[in-house]
Formats: sequence, structure tokens, C-alpha cells
Amino acid sequence: MTTPRDPDFERRVRDSFVRQRFMATLGATLDIVRPGEVHIAFAHRDELTQQHGYLHAGVLASVADSACGYAALSLMDAEAAVLSVEFKINMLAPAVGERFRAVGRVVRPGRTITVCSAEVSAYREGATVPVAVMQATMMAVRDRKGVSD
Amino acid sequence: MTTPRDPDFERRVRDSFVRQRFMATLGATLDIVRPGEVHIAFAHRDELTQQHGYLHAGVLASVADSACGYAALSLMDAEAAVLSVEFKINMLAPAVGERFRAVGRVVRPGRTITVCSAEVSAYREGATVPVAVMQATMMAVRDRKGVSD
Amino acid sequence: MTTPRDPDFERRVRDSFVRQRFMATLGATLDIVRPGEVHIAFAHRDELTQQHGYLHAGVLASVADSACGYAALSLMDAEAAVLSVEFKINMLAPAVGERFRAVGRVVRPGRTITVCSAEVSAYREGATVPVAVMQATMMAVRDRKGVSD
Amino acid sequence: MTTPRDPDFERRVRDSFVRQRFMATLGATLDIVRPGEVHIAFAHRDELTQQHGYLHAGVLASVADSACGYAALSLMDAEAAVLSVEFKINMLAPAVGERFRAVGRVVRPGRTITVCSAEVSAYREGATVPVAVMQATMMAVRDRKGVSD
Repeated sequence: MTTPRDPDFERRVRDSFVRQRFMATLGATLDIVRPGEVHIAFAHRDELTQQHGYLHAGVLASVADSACGYAALSLMDAEAAVLSVEFKINMLAPAVGERFRAVGRVVRPGRTITVCSAEVSAYREGATVPVAVMQATMMAVRDRKGVSD
Repeated sequence: MTTPRDPDFERRVRDSFVRQRFMATLGATLDIVRPGEVHIAFAHRDELTQQHGYLHAGVLASVADSACGYAALSLMDAEAAVLSVEFKINMLAPAVGERFRAVGRVVRPGRTITVCSAEVSAYREGATVPVAVMQATMMAVRDRKGVSD
Repeated sequence: MTTPRDPDFERRVRDSFVRQRFMATLGATLDIVRPGEVHIAFAHRDELTQQHGYLHAGVLASVADSACGYAALSLMDAEAAVLSVEFKINMLAPAVGERFRAVGRVVRPGRTITVCSAEVSAYREGATVPVAVMQATMMAVRDRKGVSD
Repeated sequence: MTTPRDPDFERRVRDSFVRQRFMATLGATLDIVRPGEVHIAFAHRDELTQQHGYLHAGVLASVADSACGYAALSLMDAEAAVLSVEFKINMLAPAVGERFRAVGRVVRPGRTITVCSAEVSAYREGATVPVAVMQATMMAVRDRKGVSD
């Protein structure tokens, strides 16, 4: 999408993802990391469901937020860490499937603010079904104590 | 806020919450249930953190979404189940604290669409700090197979 | 995108657009109308600006909202009218240009709820610059007094 | 809400509002300006309507966005100008009334990012009806050519 400012962006994204302990709790794994695009895979688990047996909307939001955040980080300079300013997610269909994937993409990179979007898809019985879309704002933070990526 | 259409709303909300297995995974418990207002409590756990040691924004979103959804359900008729249409969350401060609370409130109830808001607060060293605000759209679903509350 | 349920969708969208007096106030004109996709064109006018001389974010939001709403209406049955439930817009760059275009698209059509997205672009000095993206929820309304499309 | 960093905040907000030519186009006037809170009043005009005769959602969004932006500016230092990063608005009821008012409030001020909310109310036949709520992200910009408040 854009030339990354940090040539070592992939290692940085992967190292940071490992430190997101919540992703491990969800069983989510980092798949593709490209400049401005990150894919995270996860699977159905009963402990992630809401009351009707679908994955909880918060699970979709969590993984999509991480996909957006790391898509943003992939284009930031080496001194920046990434924080979520806000995100908005629309559910498109019940989150039913064996496996899921969130793809986060940078819509517009910026020195401070990066706008991202994400799509979450379910794989069920051999078909791919989009289940949620997100539009998110990420922020580069520099020189903040305890905050680095 | 409004007279609930289902006098048995509290039992219905509490029974549905128990079926949200993801809330148990997060260690979140249902506290107050009033007509149009629901409080959910949760605590810091290392397995819920992002890369800087704060609670992941998706955890805040998940609990706030449930608080909004159940606030909406508390005002719905007995035949309706609740689904999240969409939500938007702004992070206000790092989610650092010993305990947290999400308060969801109905802004405007409707037969099909209910608009809600939520605030998530952290309790740290005796003080209360707002860490996130949500604005959400919930939907009443009737007669959909496998979807009841 | 999808087969329209109303074969006369284009006429219906165009007739309704003409009744949106606010679009005329903004100088916005309906360009392309396809199933699930609507383009609206507008131009810079000083009376639409904010304090720094850019187009006001609300102008972009207004046109993008109409583009989303009519994209949704293009796929609705002949009995349905369209209302905006909510929308979210991110600004990507200063809205500076001679001409602008909002393209609204249906992300997922539904009997009651339709999810849409829109992109607003500026044309300045021969180049196209994306200036805003929207993610919106539209609703089909039937049998409501005074509300028809 | 908070002590303004610029003691001259009210004059600065009022001067900037006058430069928002779009507010004049909408017939919107700046009413109350307090630290972290701004009220903007407007009235029904046929040229601001959508196809069913209600005020267009974009009109509500425009005025609510300005109310949020100026609430944010009221707490910023004298060197900062304000830009809208993003906003999200939910419609609560048809925007029908003789007069309307948007009240924007700072939810959390920050050096760079300020989170705001707004409520838009209609006055019809002596009663006040909330018609929309907004949650918005505003940004302080410093030293950007052509951007000052």
C-alpha cells in the first residue's frame, strides 16, 4: 500500500502481537503481515459465544481492532507505538462458522492519526461469509512511559 | 427510565447473561439490572491485556456491548430477543485498574431499534476513572429460529 | 451487486432525491444510480465552508449519508422507505477541491437493516484525493404515515 | 467542566464560529459558550429537509459536529486549532420541530485528542424531544499552515 517507514515492520508487529495476551485468550493467531494490511485468524470456541451460540460481537471487535492497530503500526516509524482511539463495528450476519478471519487495512496513514478499516469473515461449510465491518482510528504515540511497540 | 413491557425483565436478562459464555471467559459478572440500565463488573486479569499491559480495547467493547444489549432487552417485550446492530467506542484513558464497571443505558427505546450508551470506568487506588464511552444500536428480533432471550 | 427487488428502483431513487431539498441547498446532484451503488456530485462553494476554508465535515457527512441511503433504497422493495439509523464518518484529508463526489455502496442488504459504506473524494488540480469514509446503518420503513419513497 | 487553558476561550470560539460560513447557510447561531460546553440553535427551514419533510440527518450532524468542535476548542490552549477526526451520530426520532438545539460537551479533554458528545433536541408544540446523539473525536492542530482558530 505504502512504503513502510520502518523496514523491520514485520518483526515489530509480530513481536507486539505476541505480547497481546488477550489474542492468545481468544485463540487468535497472526497470519499475514504486509505494509498496511494485517490478517488475524481465529476459530469458533464455545467460550467465546453470546447467548444465541454465535461468537460474541465483542470477539469480532477485539480481533478486528487488533488487525486495524497492527495494520496501522506496520506503516509507522520505529519510534511510534500504536493505541486505539476509537472504532465502530457493524455486524452483517450471525458469527457462525468453523473458522474466522479479520483483515485490517490502512485507509489513510498519518504521522499521528491513521484511519483503518477491517472486515471479519466466517468460513462455514466451505463458504466465506462476511460477518462484520469496522472503521477505526489509530494513533501513534511517542515517548510515553511504558508504551512501546 | 421507562416502564418495562415485560414485568419479568430482570429474570430474563439474568438468564440470558448466564448463557453469554464469553462474559464468563472475561470474568464479567452481572450486577445491577434496572429498567433501561445494566451494570456489569469485571476485574483486571493479565490474560485480557494488550501489548502495553492495559486491558485490550476489545475487552472494554465486549462488556460495554453486553451492558448496552441487556439494557435494551430490559425494555423489550417478552417475545423479543436482542442483537447488536453496531457499536462505536472511544477510549478515554489507559484501561489500568484493579476493577472495572460498564454501565449501559437506553437512550431511546423502540419497537425494533433501541439506541444505547455505555460508560466503562476503572477503579484504581481508590479513585474512579472513566476509560471508555460507547454509543450503540440494538435490535429486537422476533420469530427468528434459534434466537431467543 | 444484487438484483433489485423493485425493477423501477432508479426512477424511485431519482424522484426521492429531488424531494431532498437539502441536497439542492448544497448544490449536490445525483449522478450514477445502480443497484446498491449511488454517486452524488457536488462542488466547492464558499457558503459550505468551515473556519479554515475547507468544506465543513457536515457537508461531506450529509452527501455521504444521502449516497448511503439511496444505495440502500435501490435494493429495497417498492413498499419500503429509507431512514438513516446512524452513520460514522472519518475525515481523511482537508476537504479542499473544485469538485467532490460521494459514492455510497451497500455492504449488506437486509429486509429491515442495510449496512452501507461511502467514500467522498475531492478533485483538485487534476488529481483525486479521498477526503472521508463513512460506515452507515439504514433502515427500511413500511406503513409509516407520511414516510414513503 | 475543566479550567480553560486559554482565558480568552469564549471570544476565540465566537470569532471562529463566525468564520464557519456553513453555519450561516444553515441559519445556525452560537448561543452558550462555557468551558467544555457549547450550544448552537437553529430552526426548521424547508431548504434543510430530506424527502419526508424532516430535517436532513446531515443538518443535525453538521450542527452537532460544530458544537463538539467548539466545546473541544474551548478547552484548548491558545495555539491550537480544532479539526474533526471523526463523528458518529444516531438518530432518535424524526427531526420535526419549530426550533432545534445542539449541545456539545467535552467528555475527555486531551493535548492532542479530545472526545466529545452532543445531543440535538427539537422543540415542537411546547415540548422538547431528543432527536439525535453524537460521539465525536476532535484533534488539536498546531503550526499547520492556514489552520488557526
